[in-house]
Amino acid sequence: MSALRQQIERGIDQGLGRDVADLVIKNTRFLNVVTGEIAQGDIAICGDRIVGTYESYKGRREIDGRRLIAVPGFVDCHLHVESSLVAPAEFDRCALPRGTTTAICDPHEMCNVLGKQGLDFFLESATATAMDLRVQLSSCVPATHLETAGATLSAADLTPYRNHPKVIGLAEFMNAPGIFHKTPEVIDKIEAFWGAHIDGHAPLMKGYELNAYLACGIRNCHETTSEAEAWEKLRKGMQVFIREGSACKDLHALAPIINTRTAPFLGFCTDDRNPLDIAEEGHIDHLIRGAIKAGAPMADVYRLATWSAARGFGLTDRGLIAPGQRADIVLLGDLDDCAVVQVIAGGRVVDDELFAARQMPLPVGYNSVKLKPVRAEDFRVPASGPTGPVIGIREGQVLTDFLTLTLPYKNGERLVDLAQDVIKVCVFERHGRRGSVGRGFVRGLKLARGAIASSIGHDSHNVCVVGSVDSDMALAVNRQIELGGGFVLAEGGKILAEMPLPLAGLMSDHSFESVAMQIGALRRAVRNLGCPLAEPFLQMAFLPLPVIPHLKITDLGLVDVDKFELVAA
Amino acid sequence: MSALRQQIERGIDQGLGRDVADLVIKNTRFLNVVTGEIAQGDIAICGDRIVGTYESYKGRREIDGRRLIAVPGFVDCHLHVESSLVAPAEFDRCALPRGTTTAICDPHEMCNVLGKQGLDFFLESATATAMDLRVQLSSCVPATHLETAGATLSAADLTPYRNHPKVIGLAEFMNAPGIFHKTPEVIDKIEAFWGAHIDGHAPLMKGYELNAYLACGIRNCHETTSEAEAWEKLRKGMQVFIREGSACKDLHALAPIINTRTAPFLGFCTDDRNPLDIAEEGHIDHLIRGAIKAGAPMADVYRLATWSAARGFGLTDRGLIAPGQRADIVLLGDLDDCAVVQVIAGGRVVDDELFAARQMPLPVGYNSVKLKPVRAEDFRVPASGPTGPVIGIREGQVLTDFLTLTLPYKNGERLVDLAQDVIKVCVFERHGRRGSVGRGFVRGLKLARGAIASSIGHDSHNVCVVGSVDSDMALAVNRQIELGGGFVLAEGGKILAEMPLPLAGLMSDHSFESVAMQIGALRRAVRNLGCPLAEPFLQMAFLPLPVIPHLKITDLGLVDVDKFELVAA
Repeated sequence: MSALRQQIERGIDQGLGRDVADLVIKNTRFLNVVTGEIAQGDIAICGDRIVGTYESYKGRREIDGRRLIAVPGFVDCHLHVESSLVAPAEFDRCALPRGTTTAICDPHEMCNVLGKQGLDFFLESATATAMDLRVQLSSCVPATHLETAGATLSAADLTPYRNHPKVIGLAEFMNAPGIFHKTPEVIDKIEAFWGAHIDGHAPLMKGYELNAYLACGIRNCHETTSEAEAWEKLRKGMQVFIREGSACKDLHALAPIINTRTAPFLGFCTDDRNPLDIAEEGHIDHLIRGAIKAGAPMADVYRLATWSAARGFGLTDRGLIAPGQRADIVLLGDLDDCAVVQVIAGGRVVDDELFAARQMPLPVGYNSVKLKPVRAEDFRVPASGPTGPVIGIREGQVLTDFLTLTLPYKNGERLVDLAQDVIKVCVFERHGRRGSVGRGFVRGLKLARGAIASSIGHDSHNVCVVGSVDSDMALAVNRQIELGGGFVLAEGGKILAEMPLPLAGLMSDHSFESVAMQIGALRRAVRNLGCPLAEPFLQMAFLPLPVIPHLKITDLGLVDVDKFELVAA
Repeated sequence: MSALRQQIERGIDQGLGRDVADLVIKNTRFLNVVTGEIAQGDIAICGDRIVGTYESYKGRREIDGRRLIAVPGFVDCHLHVESSLVAPAEFDRCALPRGTTTAICDPHEMCNVLGKQGLDFFLESATATAMDLRVQLSSCVPATHLETAGATLSAADLTPYRNHPKVIGLAEFMNAPGIFHKTPEVIDKIEAFWGAHIDGHAPLMKGYELNAYLACGIRNCHETTSEAEAWEKLRKGMQVFIREGSACKDLHALAPIINTRTAPFLGFCTDDRNPLDIAEEGHIDHLIRGAIKAGAPMADVYRLATWSAARGFGLTDRGLIAPGQRADIVLLGDLDDCAVVQVIAGGRVVDDELFAARQMPLPVGYNSVKLKPVRAEDFRVPASGPTGPVIGIREGQVLTDFLTLTLPYKNGERLVDLAQDVIKVCVFERHGRRGSVGRGFVRGLKLARGAIASSIGHDSHNVCVVGSVDSDMALAVNRQIELGGGFVLAEGGKILAEMPLPLAGLMSDHSFESVAMQIGALRRAVRNLGCPLAEPFLQMAFLPLPVIPHLKITDLGLVDVDKFELVAA
């Protein structure tokens, strides 16, 4: 008898109460996501499935649920595991105990550096994690023609992965201009995944453009930042994923759209969230807590975090505490606080033993920073005059402003101006391809001294460096090369702090606890240099992302995102 | 360039308003099923898709929407086209103009007579209809071991059809006892369709049995007859399809469960509905009207009839008036009355021309009543005494009562008793297999004279005959044989009325208009014989259905459905 058939027959016997169930949560309350009621009783589990509710069961193993309240496991609708700065194995160990039993990731950071090798690594990892990690196929590697990535993934590269059991469809389709221009390689991907699932990415998109984008079969958006934007997307049938990452925080703005009517068309996601924030604030549990605190109706919040999210991806086997559903269950002390006490993932109690038993693949992507040492003079910004474009950072947002400012100007060179809070930003191509460098200015970091370099720079992950002193900028970049990627702070000719990210220059090969500690130390060091931003590294990492308005910088130079073209510095 | 690519690129151009759209509904109001709002504006259509809403468009063809209100096309979640008594081509012509743009049918009536030939006929028909007819794979042919069907469909017969573009999954899983007993051929089907879609059929099922049934991955039920039953199913995560057929009318009982919270977990279906009722009352539009009249909130009613229904089957491409969705649109004069003015199906305006252009397959199933002529003495009911089981009909329900009554008794024969409204019911195996005959008594038809014979008798479709006079019963059955199936009324040695159903003994090969007229004539003739039931033929057709409690009759004899075994007459 096949294992599946055995599971089916055991499920029938255990559901009927004819046999003792594998696991029973006894005498618990649970939130019924269908009716919104608080139910009371036993939850019987056979293998990875729930087989009984609303009846009395005996279990081979029993959990006393008397002081607990059960809810379905949470779904993170869109994230880049790479942004947790740890490998999938550690992300699993970090987010699953917070109740995230399903996470839909887009490995495009790693794919931009390593191509198919990165995708394969994620798919192998997803097969081993204790949570159900799903891997969308990165649709925009490179994201645009306005930057140099480490690899290219064409429609022909992606289609062989289409039926992989861990793949749902195409990841966030960022190249909206490519759609509107009917760029052949872009339409190739829409055609190859026609009728299948395609995730969206449509910051500030509206009107006719949003219509044309949706007409391509794109289903959702996690880049919505205002209530009005969310309503237009909902009215046009687009599922809206409310995001609360480490840098991008949209929950406060979007909580008012949550109600019983809209909940089926919503979901939560973290997009980019570091392990310190996960440890200190939480993961999807943090969004649930925040939404309820912001006044959204509790039952609707839990529905959208579970059932709505799962159904939005065609996952019909989860999101409810009901027979036939995956036994993804979060046991809480309290519903409003979403205080996670224990987690069951696919019928297995989540504990250290479960994580220890996983057979994770070996990490990949060492030595990915292929860059020759740089010198202070590489950071000069030649310009035709004192007035020019400056990237304006908005704290907590990926959106930037396109500023035009007048800066000190000397010998054909535009200079930093700390009085205006304007410093330099440069991006060095680091995949051993073009050797190109983009140079410009940025306002809003309040970095009074020194320089910060990062090998994380969405989405091509070239080396991005900001600073007011050219020699410190050079020092920080050169230390990058030695580390094989990471975060580096330099001041006065010295390295002040650093965190190696040797996996593709994106992720640490250490535990999430140690990474969380290192981030804490780095943040303090950045604050000592004068920068008050809560998330300086993530905020920096979005400066090279030319798919988010309005002004960005890549290794090819400054990008006017609205016009989708390079502009002179 | 492929046709699909052309459609994608045209969709982008038309959605952007860069090109004139193929079809525009101008200046219309429409019900936004996501937000519940009444929206105003143009709806642009390119090919079979909506490509624009909430913006202004020009169309190669334009429909003036000023006095209309648009809603998404309706979905019938479960029906047997055979019950419309016409072939799929005529069902299409009959139901689509009422707004049913998608119908999920189970061809198990025809499959019970013809096996795979019936399934193939339905799949070929579905490929040609103007509506999107989906064909579920009949899971229970025969429905039980307590009857003789014309064919058997095993898991191995069905799996080759699994990926047919018109197939979603397995049709209503009626053999619940087979699940609880873990009958190998039954578990074969659950195993073969594990993770895929399986429709349910769970009349009065509850408690542990419902849990075990759901644990098998079965997703919905259209056999719910009371509010309490619906709530238990919803609480256990089962989608509840509210049914209003010609015989089974559950809308009144279930309308109270409709609200904004439950709507995503509901749907409407007709199950068995004849063309007279469709013509006189309507199809899904009739359920919408009725639900609103019964007090259900209008926006929730439309949501469940469209989006919820579609999503319940994993159909993500319909159920909303939004870009990217199929252009299945119903134009109404009024929302509360659901007064259908015009229908657009897959971007095509529904009219006579559209129906005329279809390439329907040739009908199949002629000469399917393989039965030798019968005599009056074949209708004697030998019994050990005057007291025995009698089937109690409940008007408008498929459920019957298990009555034990004392009847006139003479020469070892139990006899009809018109004073108690008890007449005979016999079922003749007609597939040329066993030649078996089941004999018993029924109460509730109030048939004072004559006999009625039908070649429709769920689900094996043996010839079922009811009557008080043995010779009339024999005459009616013998006329069946000559017609190759149908409905026949006989009285005093004469045929009073008849309607041939030569396609498998189930469907007419005439137009739905002519069948509707014939039904009218037949109903009047039945009423003249004393029977006041609104749907005498459908009600009769359910007497041999041994999967619905409590007492039924097949060619093998009386069936105690609760015990799932044969009982002596």
